[in-house]
Amino acid sequence: MKEKIHQWLEANREEATLFLQKLVQAPSTQGNEAGVQEIVVEKLNAMGLEVDVWEPDGEELAKHAYFYSPKSEFSGSPNVVGVMRGTGDGRSIVLNGHIDVVPAGDTAQWKDDPFSGKIEDGKMYGRGVTDMKGGNVSLLLAMQALQALDVRLKGDVIFHSVIEEESGGAGTLAAILRGYRADAAIIPEPTNMRIFPKQQGSMWFRLMVKGRAAHGGTRYEGVSAIEKTMTVVQHVLNLEKERNARITDPLYKNTPIPVPINLGVVEGGSWPSSVPDLVKLEGRMGVSPEETMEQAKAEMKDWIAKLGDIDPWFKDHPVELEWFGARWVPGTIDTDHELMNALVGKFRQVTGTEPVIEASPWGTDGGLLTHVAETPSIVFGPGVTEMAHFPNEYIVLDKVFEAAEIIALTLLDWCGVEDK
Amino acid sequence: MKEKIHQWLEANREEATLFLQKLVQAPSTQGNEAGVQEIVVEKLNAMGLEVDVWEPDGEELAKHAYFYSPKSEFSGSPNVVGVMRGTGDGRSIVLNGHIDVVPAGDTAQWKDDPFSGKIEDGKMYGRGVTDMKGGNVSLLLAMQALQALDVRLKGDVIFHSVIEEESGGAGTLAAILRGYRADAAIIPEPTNMRIFPKQQGSMWFRLMVKGRAAHGGTRYEGVSAIEKTMTVVQHVLNLEKERNARITDPLYKNTPIPVPINLGVVEGGSWPSSVPDLVKLEGRMGVSPEETMEQAKAEMKDWIAKLGDIDPWFKDHPVELEWFGARWVPGTIDTDHELMNALVGKFRQVTGTEPVIEASPWGTDGGLLTHVAETPSIVFGPGVTEMAHFPNEYIVLDKVFEAAEIIALTLLDWCGVEDK
Repeated sequence: MKEKIHQWLEANREEATLFLQKLVQAPSTQGNEAGVQEIVVEKLNAMGLEVDVWEPDGEELAKHAYFYSPKSEFSGSPNVVGVMRGTGDGRSIVLNGHIDVVPAGDTAQWKDDPFSGKIEDGKMYGRGVTDMKGGNVSLLLAMQALQALDVRLKGDVIFHSVIEEESGGAGTLAAILRGYRADAAIIPEPTNMRIFPKQQGSMWFRLMVKGRAAHGGTRYEGVSAIEKTMTVVQHVLNLEKERNARITDPLYKNTPIPVPINLGVVEGGSWPSSVPDLVKLEGRMGVSPEETMEQAKAEMKDWIAKLGDIDPWFKDHPVELEWFGARWVPGTIDTDHELMNALVGKFRQVTGTEPVIEASPWGTDGGLLTHVAETPSIVFGPGVTEMAHFPNEYIVLDKVFEAAEIIALTLLDWCGVEDK
Repeated sequence: MKEKIHQWLEANREEATLFLQKLVQAPSTQGNEAGVQEIVVEKLNAMGLEVDVWEPDGEELAKHAYFYSPKSEFSGSPNVVGVMRGTGDGRSIVLNGHIDVVPAGDTAQWKDDPFSGKIEDGKMYGRGVTDMKGGNVSLLLAMQALQALDVRLKGDVIFHSVIEEESGGAGTLAAILRGYRADAAIIPEPTNMRIFPKQQGSMWFRLMVKGRAAHGGTRYEGVSAIEKTMTVVQHVLNLEKERNARITDPLYKNTPIPVPINLGVVEGGSWPSSVPDLVKLEGRMGVSPEETMEQAKAEMKDWIAKLGDIDPWFKDHPVELEWFGARWVPGTIDTDHELMNALVGKFRQVTGTEPVIEASPWGTDGGLLTHVAETPSIVFGPGVTEMAHFPNEYIVLDKVFEAAEIIALTLLDWCGVEDK
């Protein structure tokens, strides 16, 4: 069967490559997903799947605790699901890929048009080709190969082509709430073919550090919010140390800081000659797959409240903590889960090498699938990790087909095959 | 003579108050000084002084090492000088007052129109009334009183009504370069009637602290410019400590930090989930009256260069130091200078109290007079220090006349009186 799948993929390589190119050439940045989803729907229809196309209901989504998007309304931004119905009694699987891409950014840094889909030396270039339209094509190829070989799976295969991953996961949340969940999931985000059974979650926070204004010439009459910020930064670094000391999971053995707390933005004061009375810090708190976001939030809140023990100033002028903007739910699947065993086994079989199994340093929609849909998820895909969100983003085309082969074989194992 | 001057001031109080009100009602923010200078010129002509009105030549000024202004061109912004010529053989004096005012700021914070000149409970309100049109009126009253009493001074009295003090002193610099210097000077900036023989200078600097960008989830792959900034802030605080430990002048005995280094602005990073690769710090370095600005700059430069000894990161990624924007030259006059003796004596005589003699925590145009014109300067004026640049700025009118009386008597002493 491995050989047959391989041959079918070889035989259909050109067509699949052109299909990927077509997806890349439809620039599906936030709010502009309708065009590419039409191409996807056409493909799913041609494959004879049960196809569902809908615009998520912003009002409904907004009621959900895990909803986040800068948008409140999704007309013109359809979600798509295609179901390859199993014959029954098999384990179902979600194959989840987001179709939205981040903006091209500074086009001057691109050698070609960011949406060219240009092919050179075995690579295809373009925004979104690695993150993650290439992975989506691997999923579709896996399903097509099985169809072409007339394999009938017992379990349902539920293909998600979702919007809004890059801005918080509202597309996957909408698919889950519409009932598209399963016994497990694979998400082919760009992992360089590494297998991620765990994904770090993250949340954005803002700290407002207060001082008291004064003229710089008599700065001793004020209290510098910049100096107080030094204490706060050190305090946050100490929290990071404490949180990471607790993490003993061997999946993190090569990760210097498994769940970092990153302070990304600092801004305060308005005049060189004035004592600054307010400094804003904004950062990203990593959330371990072993904790809930609420636990992580509570720990940060309690920790910040301790600042008053370090410097009495903070007792009367407490640092304000706010959670804002994007957040990504952490995800986890047991490393001895049967889908892990299947995927790892097929990886060895197809590549002849041992897979790298790690915990992901960033979140994916796998967190939502795990926590909202009880669908444990593995992140594994053909894209180039380093090129995601970068100018001249590319994918190595061989990897798209290699991933497709591994996933197709994994589906046979996981979903089971109906005897003819 | 004291009694006569006092009586003349009493008799002319209403007229002088209305004159001050007229000055306040002409909003002479930067670039809008022409209107108020016309009123001043009219007064000087009425007093029969030698009057000089000119628009400073921006190109000429720009060649001078001590020139600073955000403007390069001063048409429509005249400087005014009025000379009350002495009979000869007396010591000359500059009476320097700036006529420019800072903007009203948020007018919602003002109880009345910022340029109302409203009088209530012995106070006059309005932008610039304390900083420093009230002081300017004290100077004019002192001269008028002596004229009215038919006193003929031996030394010249050179009255400066200058622009641009609030933005770096280009007006006083222009007056100096035009030849209007003297043996000493009085500048009635708002000191709450304290006498400042020394004025702290200051300069603005900018530090660019470098890091290396990375994704926040793998922040250990980057170097946080925010964390590096903590080291830089501490290093700058240490320099402040070192510099102030050297200051033993008893004039600073009540000043917790005689020459502060104020860090007023911090700004860095652009995304909570990214490791920040650049942080900007902007601050104000106090310059002691006992050092030159060049010495202070050199000390800062050498100190910043030492960061590499604290953290090797700074060896390969040196913090960039830049001097920018405004700067105020420090000023000093000997505390036993004869003008000091005269002023202190007349203060005691008029008020019956001991004057507060301190070093000023901020610069004035006295630095330029001292260093460019070799005109040692005393800062002493009727305005309310705390209200300068604040909403609802006011002056206590009694103080305008008290200062006028003290200055008139001082002129008698300093310039000498020609026998009739």
